[in-house]
Amino acid sequence: MDIGGTKVAGALVDSDGAMTATTRRPTPRGADGDTVFAAVAEVVAELAQSPLWASAVRCGIGSAGPVDTARGTVSPVNIGAWRGFPVQARVEAELARHGARIPTVLAGDGVAMTAAEHWLGAARGHANALCMVVSTGVGGGLVLNNQLHPGPTGNAGHIGHISVAFDGEPCACGGRGCVESLASGTAIAAWALAQGWVPAGDATAAGVAAAAAAGDPVALAAFDRAGRALAAAIAATATLVETDIAVIGGGVAACGDTLFGPVRAHLASYATLSFVKDLQVVPAMLGTHAGLIGAAAAATMLLRS
Amino acid sequence: MDIGGTKVAGALVDSDGAMTATTRRPTPRGADGDTVFAAVAEVVAELAQSPLWASAVRCGIGSAGPVDTARGTVSPVNIGAWRGFPVQARVEAELARHGARIPTVLAGDGVAMTAAEHWLGAARGHANALCMVVSTGVGGGLVLNNQLHPGPTGNAGHIGHISVAFDGEPCACGGRGCVESLASGTAIAAWALAQGWVPAGDATAAGVAAAAAAGDPVALAAFDRAGRALAAAIAATATLVETDIAVIGGGVAACGDTLFGPVRAHLASYATLSFVKDLQVVPAMLGTHAGLIGAAAAATMLLRS
Repeated sequence: MDIGGTKVAGALVDSDGAMTATTRRPTPRGADGDTVFAAVAEVVAELAQSPLWASAVRCGIGSAGPVDTARGTVSPVNIGAWRGFPVQARVEAELARHGARIPTVLAGDGVAMTAAEHWLGAARGHANALCMVVSTGVGGGLVLNNQLHPGPTGNAGHIGHISVAFDGEPCACGGRGCVESLASGTAIAAWALAQGWVPAGDATAAGVAAAAAAGDPVALAAFDRAGRALAAAIAATATLVETDIAVIGGGVAACGDTLFGPVRAHLASYATLSFVKDLQVVPAMLGTHAGLIGAAAAATMLLRS
Repeated sequence: MDIGGTKVAGALVDSDGAMTATTRRPTPRGADGDTVFAAVAEVVAELAQSPLWASAVRCGIGSAGPVDTARGTVSPVNIGAWRGFPVQARVEAELARHGARIPTVLAGDGVAMTAAEHWLGAARGHANALCMVVSTGVGGGLVLNNQLHPGPTGNAGHIGHISVAFDGEPCACGGRGCVESLASGTAIAAWALAQGWVPAGDATAAGVAAAAAAGDPVALAAFDRAGRALAAAIAATATLVETDIAVIGGGVAACGDTLFGPVRAHLASYATLSFVKDLQVVPAMLGTHAGLIGAAAAATMLLRS
């Protein structure tokens, strides 16, 4: 299961990562908690129609955060009706109603994406990896010692809200100088606008990237600044826990070298110590499927450990 | 064994953390690598005279960094004659010469201090902890999931060289805005001097702390700035890996509330997400014995896992 502010998706994922019976529902907006959950129940009911349903051995539930895996609850920023919502127990009840009394694992979407990239994507074979999504927000997750590291409440890897500018501007989270406030798509577009960039169409990071590709100096400066902030955060993570690769996915990463160029160019200014000098930064490989594959991968990795 | 730029120390540490046969030698200065190692050999030889020598079951070697535990080598900044020096193999040979064919573990001094504070000090009972030393430099180590997390080369926890000011001043490491360049004792004294502080005696962090205690506004501002940088770094670590406590030792931490006051006051500005709101910052408990106790604790923790 992959639960976000826009859609609720589900699939049966086999041991090679192939998905069948994929289905999705729009996340109900402005509804109460039970109405939102009804979309989840419909997805489960549809999956239960698959001839492979009876062979399901575990269920991963990836959700927009914050999550609290110790309690099995979620409070997604983009699903206002769910605050401390007991999604894990509710999904388990739904599975049982369809005859599947199987173990479940709840994971934040950053942790799920990380599990997917470690299983089948760009972090495969790396015992210590940071995976992140740079999109309207910035999120992430960690693999340490070949194990997923969700932390006690499932929120580890929240790289969007570490400060790389302790004297910097306030962030919506209440912090100051957070990576998300400097390097998210939202932040890139806002900074470019504030510096005088005139969008040809919508004022999005993709628009800034198009302008950068055309040589617009403000657009180039906007990506350079975001790249520096990301480089500092990626280097900080490697310096703290000895990750040797950073995998970046999400809409802003889809801008390709417009983003990766500045990140890589600035990495040497922050990853200075001998044990982090070989740190790599690469694009994610699993794209839009990372959520579903990642929920399955997280269930496998966390039930194994 | 505890090997640093000033001294080489050794002790037999029992299963309760009590030390016997403690001995030390000054670290030879300006000497070649073998001459420096002769001091280590003398410490081993003296320990071997103890009636308890035969009951030693493992040997922890804590060393100033950088270390490379994958290779068993060290290149301490303050021991110029040792670059890639195979200290682990050399200590093993020395132990064997005295009849002790026991497993050894090499750990950086930040990791060793962390093992000590987790075993017997302020991080006891915390499954996820950051321990750090704020002194002439800033170092540290991590406990994650109740295990020491040295990382593949033994350098994880290097919090002194993460950037909390990506647009900040250059650091001696080649980076920019590193915690050490903002919050070490050296940095505190240098910043206070640059802002016009007139030392009564030596221009040290202790001198700045004394001036702060007397109400000197520049001295207070110097500790406030260091405290903000430390708070940002401690919060970043908690946000990345879900540590719930930060333990601070070292000479600058000995200034007590002059340092801890600003760190704690600023923590809420950086540790904003629900899962890090209860993050605590406390003084280290083991003081000068942390190196030796920590080397023993690291050996126990790392050979167990």
